[in-house]
Amino acid sequence: MSRLLLLSSSRAGTTGYLDHAQPLMADFLEANPISIERVLFIPFAGVGKTFDAYLEQVRPAFAAIGLEVDGIHQAPDSKSAVREAQAIAVGGGNTFALVKRLYEADLLGILRERVEAGTPYIGWSAGSNIAGPTLCTTNDMPIVEPPSFVTLGLVPFQLNPHFLSGKPAGHNGESREERLAEYLALNPKALVVALREGTALRREADTLTLVGELDGEAFAKDGQQPLAAGSRLDHLLAPDASE
Amino acid sequence: MSRLLLLSSSRAGTTGYLDHAQPLMADFLEANPISIERVLFIPFAGVGKTFDAYLEQVRPAFAAIGLEVDGIHQAPDSKSAVREAQAIAVGGGNTFALVKRLYEADLLGILRERVEAGTPYIGWSAGSNIAGPTLCTTNDMPIVEPPSFVTLGLVPFQLNPHFLSGKPAGHNGESREERLAEYLALNPKALVVALREGTALRREADTLTLVGELDGEAFAKDGQQPLAAGSRLDHLLAPDASE
Repeated sequence: MSRLLLLSSSRAGTTGYLDHAQPLMADFLEANPISIERVLFIPFAGVGKTFDAYLEQVRPAFAAIGLEVDGIHQAPDSKSAVREAQAIAVGGGNTFALVKRLYEADLLGILRERVEAGTPYIGWSAGSNIAGPTLCTTNDMPIVEPPSFVTLGLVPFQLNPHFLSGKPAGHNGESREERLAEYLALNPKALVVALREGTALRREADTLTLVGELDGEAFAKDGQQPLAAGSRLDHLLAPDASE
Repeated sequence: MSRLLLLSSSRAGTTGYLDHAQPLMADFLEANPISIERVLFIPFAGVGKTFDAYLEQVRPAFAAIGLEVDGIHQAPDSKSAVREAQAIAVGGGNTFALVKRLYEADLLGILRERVEAGTPYIGWSAGSNIAGPTLCTTNDMPIVEPPSFVTLGLVPFQLNPHFLSGKPAGHNGESREERLAEYLALNPKALVVALREGTALRREADTLTLVGELDGEAFAKDGQQPLAAGSRLDHLLAPDASE
């Protein structure tokens, strides 16, 4: 009965921090069967700023939709904080740092358990990446080594946020499509859902919807398919849609 | 007494595969105290093509400078092949795939040993990345999970190939500078040498030279410094230049 809102990014175009996300988050949290007043924020993807600073950065976005935010790093017991959270939000930054810190705090198991029991989960960027089975389709630099690439597996497919087609001119690095094709060459049974900035996936138990104004893309070994903006993607939740 | 030629990329601008590298490789190998006729090629970074196909792709570039190429994947015993190699070349592709396959074949130790004993080493892209202490400053997607991020450590600093300043317009992903700043935030004693396409580092024992027509960049926690094209960088080999 998982409830997930997986945002591609904290910004869309030139709008402010989480601006585009506010109506999506408000609608998602207001639809919760149990009323939500506070959100537990996990700032572990943050690098180059303190967790306190990151908490202060996100608070106004949630305050604007009437919600208080608690930082997990300020909780006396982080597992209890997850267990008791009304809703959980995992922010963006570096996916490797996020995953390493989640393992160090031994939070993967309790997070998975609570979200599968119904605690609503909001992620953006790295926070969306880890909703898939592994971190293998992150765009981030591997700046630290986590004990494992295995992540939450709240959906059966991989996520690729900040999706951007093609590559910069005059450079011989890979395009995003080429990177994902490399992933699929070595993981031929996997499915990757790529989300353009400003879009999100919303899961309500067995339903999945692509939210936002831009199409997504689904990448599998046998090809790439556009996912229409606003469309229902429930079939991607079937256990055999990917491995 | 290591001899290294660490190329940023297999291509520079719109030139053909390894075209710009040929004179650099020829000069490097001709300077070897023992005459070189054959190069052992390690194609393990290749993804989405067979190792045989990758071998055939690189052969013409070496043939043009009078050298035969043997693929390590065709050797009956890969460790013996490394032990007996006159010179070693490690091609680009995906750094995670390269490192995973090197660990699976248990080749890190013997490679490090032979290169430190004087066997000349040529790398490009992923093959240059692994000459540093870890893979943490690769640009590649983590498409497979290697048992460790520790790499050859043939130089005491990290490498960042395909260096490109800034970021594509209309996108909220990180620039390369921002990615490296994140790495340095969590690895504050490290030094990263970023190589623009078409350039290379050449190490001859205690000397290090930036080869090619473009400047490089050195990134440390306290800032960024240009490395002049053609300049000597011997000081970067000092053990205390980075950790």
